[in-house]
Amino acid sequence: MQGNIVVGQSGGPTAVINSSVAGIYSAAKRAGIKKIYGMVHGIQGFLQEEMINLDDYLENDMGIELLKRTPSAFLGTCRFKMPVIDGNEQLYEEVFRIMEKYNIEALFYIGGNDSMDTIKMLSDYARANNKPQRFVGVPKTVDNDLPVTDHCPGYGSAAKYIATTVKEVICDNGSFGLDKPSICVVEIMGRHAGWLTAAASLCRSDECDGPAAIYLPERTFDIEKFVKDMKEIGETRRAAVVAVSEGVKLKDGRFVCELSETDQGTDVFGHKQLSGCGNVLSAIIAEELGYKTRAIEFSTVQRSATHIASLTDIDEAFMAGSDAVEAAREGKTGIMVTLIRDGQFPYHCKTGTYDIHEIANFEKCVPVEWITSDGLNVTQDFVDYAQPLIMGELNPFMVNGVPKHLVIKNK
Amino acid sequence: MQGNIVVGQSGGPTAVINSSVAGIYSAAKRAGIKKIYGMVHGIQGFLQEEMINLDDYLENDMGIELLKRTPSAFLGTCRFKMPVIDGNEQLYEEVFRIMEKYNIEALFYIGGNDSMDTIKMLSDYARANNKPQRFVGVPKTVDNDLPVTDHCPGYGSAAKYIATTVKEVICDNGSFGLDKPSICVVEIMGRHAGWLTAAASLCRSDECDGPAAIYLPERTFDIEKFVKDMKEIGETRRAAVVAVSEGVKLKDGRFVCELSETDQGTDVFGHKQLSGCGNVLSAIIAEELGYKTRAIEFSTVQRSATHIASLTDIDEAFMAGSDAVEAAREGKTGIMVTLIRDGQFPYHCKTGTYDIHEIANFEKCVPVEWITSDGLNVTQDFVDYAQPLIMGELNPFMVNGVPKHLVIKNK
Repeated sequence: MQGNIVVGQSGGPTAVINSSVAGIYSAAKRAGIKKIYGMVHGIQGFLQEEMINLDDYLENDMGIELLKRTPSAFLGTCRFKMPVIDGNEQLYEEVFRIMEKYNIEALFYIGGNDSMDTIKMLSDYARANNKPQRFVGVPKTVDNDLPVTDHCPGYGSAAKYIATTVKEVICDNGSFGLDKPSICVVEIMGRHAGWLTAAASLCRSDECDGPAAIYLPERTFDIEKFVKDMKEIGETRRAAVVAVSEGVKLKDGRFVCELSETDQGTDVFGHKQLSGCGNVLSAIIAEELGYKTRAIEFSTVQRSATHIASLTDIDEAFMAGSDAVEAAREGKTGIMVTLIRDGQFPYHCKTGTYDIHEIANFEKCVPVEWITSDGLNVTQDFVDYAQPLIMGELNPFMVNGVPKHLVIKNK
Repeated sequence: MQGNIVVGQSGGPTAVINSSVAGIYSAAKRAGIKKIYGMVHGIQGFLQEEMINLDDYLENDMGIELLKRTPSAFLGTCRFKMPVIDGNEQLYEEVFRIMEKYNIEALFYIGGNDSMDTIKMLSDYARANNKPQRFVGVPKTVDNDLPVTDHCPGYGSAAKYIATTVKEVICDNGSFGLDKPSICVVEIMGRHAGWLTAAASLCRSDECDGPAAIYLPERTFDIEKFVKDMKEIGETRRAAVVAVSEGVKLKDGRFVCELSETDQGTDVFGHKQLSGCGNVLSAIIAEELGYKTRAIEFSTVQRSATHIASLTDIDEAFMAGSDAVEAAREGKTGIMVTLIRDGQFPYHCKTGTYDIHEIANFEKCVPVEWITSDGLNVTQDFVDYAQPLIMGELNPFMVNGVPKHLVIKNK
């Protein structure tokens, strides 16, 4: 490529989304690409020509390493969905006008389902209008729900945080010698896919039984069965931690969290804003069984805990960004970089590329055969799948006792 | 000492309460003490003669190191308060009968205010009845509210977790380029003392402004002022994180969390079980100002996150346990080991001992002069006090991607 490139981040942040920016930057520098722009707040900022030159932040050799250790979207993110082309040609023309103005030959977008839709729309428009620019998606989502790719950068680190923290919560909850059972309900992210909640199982070890129950959104949630499950758990052990996905749904289609008082609202894509199913369920345990109970919601901490990120995840996020640049240099467009597991024992992963039309707006859930028949656990197949993704650590750079981050001030 | 000793853990667990057990064990071994018993679930288990021999877990050289890296109370804890002596002589006699049966000359109790009361009562009873046994308290509380001692083991690690996580949440919350302000309310432990909530300020650095506001329970909480504060914050910045103590109270004495629907109940000491003031306040922000808002409660995670514990805290907890054994060997009883800061730049800390009667049932709060006049921040004096306590890390032993712990099965 003779011209420049631009990279943007979109959707919910992860602990390693910045490692993909680092990978794109490093590969582009190696390839001699002149200017590497960063969109501030994704395509939304790009449309306002809000961009930075990544050289200003990454040229010194500490920059890349700090960026790998920085949570959330370094460039800023957005939840902007490109409208249908028909009747919105002006908006699309604006994107290409800005690209031409800055001599940008390739646009890289790091994100999940909604973000990959942006790559699809822009590459479709380019094809239909014989525009030369290339559009490449880089997967990112803690939810791990993108199809085709074996897994998504961002998932492994959130899974590592969840496994680590659930293990610590099990220690805490089990330390009291109570007369009545104590059940702690941990609510974990995942609107439709239970990948993150299933990761609570990864804390099982010689010394830790792990969660007493794991409820994924892939299975219909039955309150009566839940109370029965909790009763049995309370009869067999003094203290237990159960992991529940924020997205568990009743047979009638209502989210369990909707049984609470508070109105939840929806996000700009119409997704229900979920929170509080842990509170709902612990209240049910207290009322129905009289057990001691507590709800813990990991909230956004689980997607931003870079201090305990998975090194495997960081390296794969970096590789996905780096190989996205190679794909664009080979002339590929309208694609997403995928992760391909080409070794299991020992684990090994390489990248590929795939037609964005087969990816955008599709969701990959946990295979039902990976959920035990009683609906309370995941199988060894899940553990074999997920455990390699949480391996390894990258120690933060600690300054005054807390991790150092790379930040664009007032972005 | 010719005989044996016993150690117990009591009250809410911390990330380093086990380091004090490790310190007691190491010093006792060095001193040639034959048997070092551990009470299972504190004095409550001791009264059932539920004890372990710590040699069974700590004799091999990995034991101590694993124990330092294990969250929560390794021995199990309890919330049992010794009743007044008058009319309960039988219970007290039972304690001494068990001590004599196992030839226990010294009892060490690691805990906070309520636990130190147990040391006070038992040593008072021993004095009044000419019993030779010694009773030594070892401070432990994330709340940091014990008097006399400069600070409490357990506080530094919880403070380090809070500063680290608040910094990561600030990155996450600030990453969206929203049209309307986003205010995230982080609810932090501390019933009457704001030490932990104030620790949110420790994330301030070149690249992080830290929380936009910090509300401690030492100041009366005014809802109208809060709404005014949030309005001003929303007018000056797009995204903000505010830290609020679970214990903030209105002028009429009600806890802010009591403004929520859910009934909170009380613990066995009659303390109100607090949770949800973050939810109450974010709901108020949404209703009054229409801002995007979210509540995050660190819950028990903040006291059990040994994976990011402070090395300074671990070492001081170990030292407090070790020096407690020395104090008992010198014949001291009815005392608590205290931490004495004998250097600030550079920080240095040593231990002392102090009459338990001056400690039990007293609470030390954040000095009001360490809170800024607008009630929204803490002064540099607080930072100078707290920052040394969060310095350093002790890397967990990672096995299969998660930290390894030392555990007594089925305790």
